[in-house]
Amino acid sequence: MQSICLVEGVRAAGVREGKYGVALIEASGTAAAVFTKNQVFAEPVRLMRERMAGGALDGIVVNAGNANVFTGVQGYGDACRMAEAAAAVLGTVPERIGVASTGVIGRYMPIELVTSQIAEAGGMLRSEDTAETDAARAIMTTDLVEKHAAVVRNGFTVAGITKGSGMIAPNMGTMLAFIYTDAEVPAPILQKVLQTAVVRSFNRVVVDGDTSTNDCVFCTATGRRGTPDMNEFQEALEEVCVSLARQIAADGEGATRLIEVRVTGAPTEEDAAKVARTVVGSPLVKTAVYGKDPNWGRVIAAAGRAGVDFDPDQATVAVTDGTRRVLLANKGEICADDVMHPEALVDAASLMDGAEVIFEVALGAGSAAATAWGCDLTEQYVEINGKYTT
Amino acid sequence: MQSICLVEGVRAAGVREGKYGVALIEASGTAAAVFTKNQVFAEPVRLMRERMAGGALDGIVVNAGNANVFTGVQGYGDACRMAEAAAAVLGTVPERIGVASTGVIGRYMPIELVTSQIAEAGGMLRSEDTAETDAARAIMTTDLVEKHAAVVRNGFTVAGITKGSGMIAPNMGTMLAFIYTDAEVPAPILQKVLQTAVVRSFNRVVVDGDTSTNDCVFCTATGRRGTPDMNEFQEALEEVCVSLARQIAADGEGATRLIEVRVTGAPTEEDAAKVARTVVGSPLVKTAVYGKDPNWGRVIAAAGRAGVDFDPDQATVAVTDGTRRVLLANKGEICADDVMHPEALVDAASLMDGAEVIFEVALGAGSAAATAWGCDLTEQYVEINGKYTT
Repeated sequence: MQSICLVEGVRAAGVREGKYGVALIEASGTAAAVFTKNQVFAEPVRLMRERMAGGALDGIVVNAGNANVFTGVQGYGDACRMAEAAAAVLGTVPERIGVASTGVIGRYMPIELVTSQIAEAGGMLRSEDTAETDAARAIMTTDLVEKHAAVVRNGFTVAGITKGSGMIAPNMGTMLAFIYTDAEVPAPILQKVLQTAVVRSFNRVVVDGDTSTNDCVFCTATGRRGTPDMNEFQEALEEVCVSLARQIAADGEGATRLIEVRVTGAPTEEDAAKVARTVVGSPLVKTAVYGKDPNWGRVIAAAGRAGVDFDPDQATVAVTDGTRRVLLANKGEICADDVMHPEALVDAASLMDGAEVIFEVALGAGSAAATAWGCDLTEQYVEINGKYTT
Repeated sequence: MQSICLVEGVRAAGVREGKYGVALIEASGTAAAVFTKNQVFAEPVRLMRERMAGGALDGIVVNAGNANVFTGVQGYGDACRMAEAAAAVLGTVPERIGVASTGVIGRYMPIELVTSQIAEAGGMLRSEDTAETDAARAIMTTDLVEKHAAVVRNGFTVAGITKGSGMIAPNMGTMLAFIYTDAEVPAPILQKVLQTAVVRSFNRVVVDGDTSTNDCVFCTATGRRGTPDMNEFQEALEEVCVSLARQIAADGEGATRLIEVRVTGAPTEEDAAKVARTVVGSPLVKTAVYGKDPNWGRVIAAAGRAGVDFDPDQATVAVTDGTRRVLLANKGEICADDVMHPEALVDAASLMDGAEVIFEVALGAGSAAATAWGCDLTEQYVEINGKYTT
């Protein structure tokens, strides 16, 4: 097992029929969730904003294929019916079921199919590697790979699955993550540490520069293994979230490589994150990475428009593949160009051929840091999104 | 003549050698300019911020091929040398010369070539159609067409040329516009009306969601035809700016069609503009337009993340080609989908085959309106930017 079934008290199942899938995950415990900030949000998000006030769940049900957005009263009723169907098979009340959806916006749910898939999944719940895999696969849309993460610490485990094709924009706009731990964490604290972890992970993946209509991250703590050291728990949760976030970036629609942007020397962490997100989301940076072109002018120009004060004459830009590193610009001095430092350009380009390209941007304007993740922009992204049927 | 040479008192010339071009425009008068807000800005922008305080120009010199950014003291000196060379051929002082650059970032200027091109252009200054065309062509980078606009009103003319490949991001990041009028307008007033016109035109073209390192718009008023009606002048200036802005959008890198997004029913014009810019800049909307897919869910989802409060149940989305119009969603009701209203989807798709696709988004949250322009996102954009040499 590699993810959620490592957590004591978790059983999972997933079924799929064409583009329609349902994942069902059973786990009783305190629970927290973070939702999209989009003004236009899914009906299941509306329902969950009401119900998560309870701070406890017995299970989560997720459907792929229809986002249940802009579907009004009927859509809200459909989200309730998903909760009811899941509650029936899990032997609990609908108020203790988490509901999430992903898929096309502006279509009514094929609710009969979804409830029958929920019943089917109910008969398959188990705690084994094929179960977590089935669940992770059931919620994929244009994802090419399933996404799992787990961190095992002294006395507890934190693990999760996620979906999201996290290119410039995820196709159908949705990033979902379901995280579990067997540590015992009261709901208000769980909510607080989850929010911090999400800010430093999923919110640093550039998925259209913003949350979609359906984005949500749930975290359930089954409590089976008692109270953890809270610093250690926060660290483990963040590690799981970052791992899942990076997997989303790497599986970006049409992507050939992951881009990581590490910003240091910012006035605040929020400022550093703004710059990192702006650089990693820049179409010009994304296409340059696709073309293995160490065009650091695009990096510094994107940093400059992030809305953060800094002096370009104090800024430094480098590229690394994690092993070797080439300085491109250093405190206002050009270190790589085709006239005076052509060998540095060639060196830099040679670092851009792998699965991961890392830009380091030191602003020289403070001591805060942040990292963001994205992927390159390729012809395939256009093809996927230009031809995806409504 | 179709643009700046229609304005009394304007002479122009342009020379080009491979990717290096210089435009020289002679026109004495009051002058105003609007510059990039990017923290990283070009050395000519630094110089002009100082010199435009004078409120008067005798001419403008522009080079293409090198953006003169991140070039420090040497770059600032090169911008000064451009002004000196232009002043010499125009018989004035360098302080009355506007300077602008576009091209690659982070390379020192080929200043000998540029100054010799300025001298050459100085011998070619004239007021005729080939002159304005030469100037407009000299400053093109990945632009496929030159861009001119003119509005002739009772008693005065306003006209301009521009460059910019205004896709998601303009290649090399730069939009430049040079506008002239023979109306007599004091510099402080010219600055004010220019700012308003720029906000409603160039700032509504989604060029990377922000101004680049080199963006600038200059407006010179030769005053040859006396004081205009100021309302009429403001209107004419805005019309010229909007025409040039739309030409930038339509010539977007790899673009096959212009996208116009008209937002109404917003709390403020600024809110309406935010929504319009977010929708027109959404990669999912851009790819949908490329695929002729009336995927209005992407439109409403982009509107929802623009940071403007509105109730989706009061929002309306329609698509039009300027002649026919199809309602896609009306105050929370789905009007086009593949199950209940498939004929509306087919109708809508049939409107998306032309050179221009217009989305109308009524938010139902106020009475302010704004329009933004962009273009579709195609494989060619990726190719141009992935393979453009640093």
